[in-house]
Amino acid sequence: MKRGFFISFEGVDGSGKSTQIDRLRAFLEDRGFDVLLTREPGGTDIGEKIRRIILDPANSEMTYMTEAFLYAASRSQHVSEVIAPAVAEGKIVICDRFVDSSVAYQGYGRQLGECVGRINEYAVDGHMPDITFFMKVKPDVGSDRISGRKPDRIEMENAEFYRRVYEGYEALASRSPDRIIGIDASGSVEEIENMIRVHVKRLVER
Amino acid sequence: MKRGFFISFEGVDGSGKSTQIDRLRAFLEDRGFDVLLTREPGGTDIGEKIRRIILDPANSEMTYMTEAFLYAASRSQHVSEVIAPAVAEGKIVICDRFVDSSVAYQGYGRQLGECVGRINEYAVDGHMPDITFFMKVKPDVGSDRISGRKPDRIEMENAEFYRRVYEGYEALASRSPDRIIGIDASGSVEEIENMIRVHVKRLVER
Repeated sequence: MKRGFFISFEGVDGSGKSTQIDRLRAFLEDRGFDVLLTREPGGTDIGEKIRRIILDPANSEMTYMTEAFLYAASRSQHVSEVIAPAVAEGKIVICDRFVDSSVAYQGYGRQLGECVGRINEYAVDGHMPDITFFMKVKPDVGSDRISGRKPDRIEMENAEFYRRVYEGYEALASRSPDRIIGIDASGSVEEIENMIRVHVKRLVER
Repeated sequence: MKRGFFISFEGVDGSGKSTQIDRLRAFLEDRGFDVLLTREPGGTDIGEKIRRIILDPANSEMTYMTEAFLYAASRSQHVSEVIAPAVAEGKIVICDRFVDSSVAYQGYGRQLGECVGRINEYAVDGHMPDITFFMKVKPDVGSDRISGRKPDRIEMENAEFYRRVYEGYEALASRSPDRIIGIDASGSVEEIENMIRVHVKRLVER
């Protein structure tokens, strides 16, 4: 059987990831592809339990390193239980956030540095996305778009944090230009959708 | 203020750790030391939540690497929130299991290898025990002593696993002979207690 593909979406909250993920899924399913949608942190029963610990505002005393280990734990389970088997079965896996989120948020945002990438090599275990869309919305625009609902613990962090996260994503994109595609997310939903389709068509038709 | 001490106890379940920990605590408190008793996994509110995920028999699909990351997450929180501050305040911290458990159980028992030690360097962050007592009870003796209560998920693993764990502890002890003291736990409770006291006296009086 033909191996499938693994696509991840990255960017700060409010950058329009969810909308584009839904549209890409519909586009691919219309063309007969078997698509599996998943997300991090979470994606498995064990991952959802870990996600609840990470995002619970009651756990405000959580250290940054503990947070990074919990993301890695969730990811390790997600890769082994969901992503790797689905790709092996020929599916197209679309993941809302993956390892780049950890490097951007914990490595750059929390300033934990290189250790985040190193521990996550064991979590990812070689299963990197074939393509990653980095939704380039500057943090101040992104934070406007989530207004109207209660922010979780992560979202309560300050603007300086989000600036570092964005810098982290840009650093990752320049380090992995073949995998990470920066998408100018200031355009219309349809314009962005079309940009993403061009790249995905090239991937699945090669 | 004078820095305190950090003492850990290691060995398979049923090796008599708890009894000796209680006796050592009483011995030190009688001599006016401020003793803090703690344990892994757990030791903090966040760590207890992580502990519940690790030990829940419902999470049987948990991968070994996920388990190793969860132990590291719990440890990182434990070191930052409890162990390091208490030692800095001059207390004697006695910890039931620490990083050697991860290396023995996950590295050797689960055969994850060297990566367990590497990820745990970030969790421990330089705060290693001043002395570690390795209670040397061969695994088959240990497993007899826990009979009579329902085994948790970890305890349900087979005898071969516990043999590897024991080998792991022996390898660690030979690698760190100044820190890890092997205690022949086939003696009477009083004999073992006295052996431990000799080492602890030497530590706190130096």
